[in-house]
Amino acid sequence: MTALSPLSQLRIVLVTPLYGGNIGSVCRAMMNMGLSDLAIVDGDRAVDWEEAHKMALHAKVLLEKAGHFSSAAEAVADCGLVAATSARTGFYRLQAKTPDAWAPTLLRQATRQPVAIMFGPEDKGLSNSDLALATQLIEIPSTDAYKSLNLAQAVMVCCYELYKHSEVFEGMEEVSPQAPSALRERMFAMWEDTLYRIGFMKEDKAFHMMMGLRRILSRGPLSEDDIKILMGIAQQSKWVADRLRQREPDLF
Amino acid sequence: MTALSPLSQLRIVLVTPLYGGNIGSVCRAMMNMGLSDLAIVDGDRAVDWEEAHKMALHAKVLLEKAGHFSSAAEAVADCGLVAATSARTGFYRLQAKTPDAWAPTLLRQATRQPVAIMFGPEDKGLSNSDLALATQLIEIPSTDAYKSLNLAQAVMVCCYELYKHSEVFEGMEEVSPQAPSALRERMFAMWEDTLYRIGFMKEDKAFHMMMGLRRILSRGPLSEDDIKILMGIAQQSKWVADRLRQREPDLF
Repeated sequence: MTALSPLSQLRIVLVTPLYGGNIGSVCRAMMNMGLSDLAIVDGDRAVDWEEAHKMALHAKVLLEKAGHFSSAAEAVADCGLVAATSARTGFYRLQAKTPDAWAPTLLRQATRQPVAIMFGPEDKGLSNSDLALATQLIEIPSTDAYKSLNLAQAVMVCCYELYKHSEVFEGMEEVSPQAPSALRERMFAMWEDTLYRIGFMKEDKAFHMMMGLRRILSRGPLSEDDIKILMGIAQQSKWVADRLRQREPDLF
Repeated sequence: MTALSPLSQLRIVLVTPLYGGNIGSVCRAMMNMGLSDLAIVDGDRAVDWEEAHKMALHAKVLLEKAGHFSSAAEAVADCGLVAATSARTGFYRLQAKTPDAWAPTLLRQATRQPVAIMFGPEDKGLSNSDLALATQLIEIPSTDAYKSLNLAQAVMVCCYELYKHSEVFEGMEEVSPQAPSALRERMFAMWEDTLYRIGFMKEDKAFHMMMGLRRILSRGPLSEDDIKILMGIAQQSKWVADRLRQREPDLF
């Protein structure tokens, strides 16, 4: 059996959503994060579809090909693993894990068969009978002061974690390669020379000052391009100072 | 110095937001994740505040006590570390890290002083001059198929990562307090002036060059002592150049 692209097998299931704007925002969030399979349960109860189209922006295509079902059970019927999001504490809390913690499991399962992630209606979340369909529970971290996330925000957090954990996402490249020590030392030597010539420091405080400059310029890696800029500035300051000294030999 | 609660020191800065609904959703996302300091730059240009209140739901209090500023520079003036979110690739990409990767750094700095996270307007993101204020760049992972996140969704992803990392965050490391943004900006303005006066750069390449210098000097935190040294060098180079120019008015 060939492995399927897991992101394409992850189905976001919105159970009885109320607001079109949220559905549109869900489409956009899904597309941002590489998901494409949207299922809507009982969507015609309250939804303003025009608003949904407006908020989907470039992700309208997901809205247009969304599956429509009359129950959560039908929407997840072909799925192996079924995750449900819940903000409830107590009984369910025991089994719940964060989106972060579940992501690898969901992605692994999604290489073999469709996986569902269910979200309840905006006003009251998933019903007990819908929760009963779930094989895992997801609880998104949030403060006790305000636990309830906006529906589309909750979907975004889950999709973001899934995308982040997927093979598709490769971390940002590390910064450009660091300049070798010898080049860095040439740069500091130039600056030391320049700081004398512009009259910024005298022998007695030179060591201390140069250590300060080294500290400032060693907080992170310096690339060769960075070094070129820093050498260019030192070079030009030195040129100006030398030219002035030709005119005023006794300046410093 | 007593450590401050880092979440309370994290400021979300919305630069010229256009849609009230997004601002309300930002308040809710912040409150879900334990953040409370919202700054809005130039908010009266287009915002429907009634819509903002509607979407904030139980997080209206954040909207009511939000700070209002006429520029991004003012909104972040007292902040040590200033992060900017950007979807741009190319030049800036090199330094960008995910919210995940930056979260520990932002939280650690926020135990000592305010930290800003800037978000640009919905239609075009942060301008180059606002990006220039940043000491770090955040890029939220997303697919090439649709890179642009909704504003409130982008804020949610960042707040979620910060909250998530704050839970496990314990034990402060020794961190030298970072100079506030306003001081850093004065230092960069001095250097820009100096680089013209010593003939190092001309108008046409000034922006690019200054971004290079900002990149070099933002690899790690700059303390007030560091800034004093950097200002001292700029000041002295400028003095030498000005004195030379008195003798040779047509030099550059």
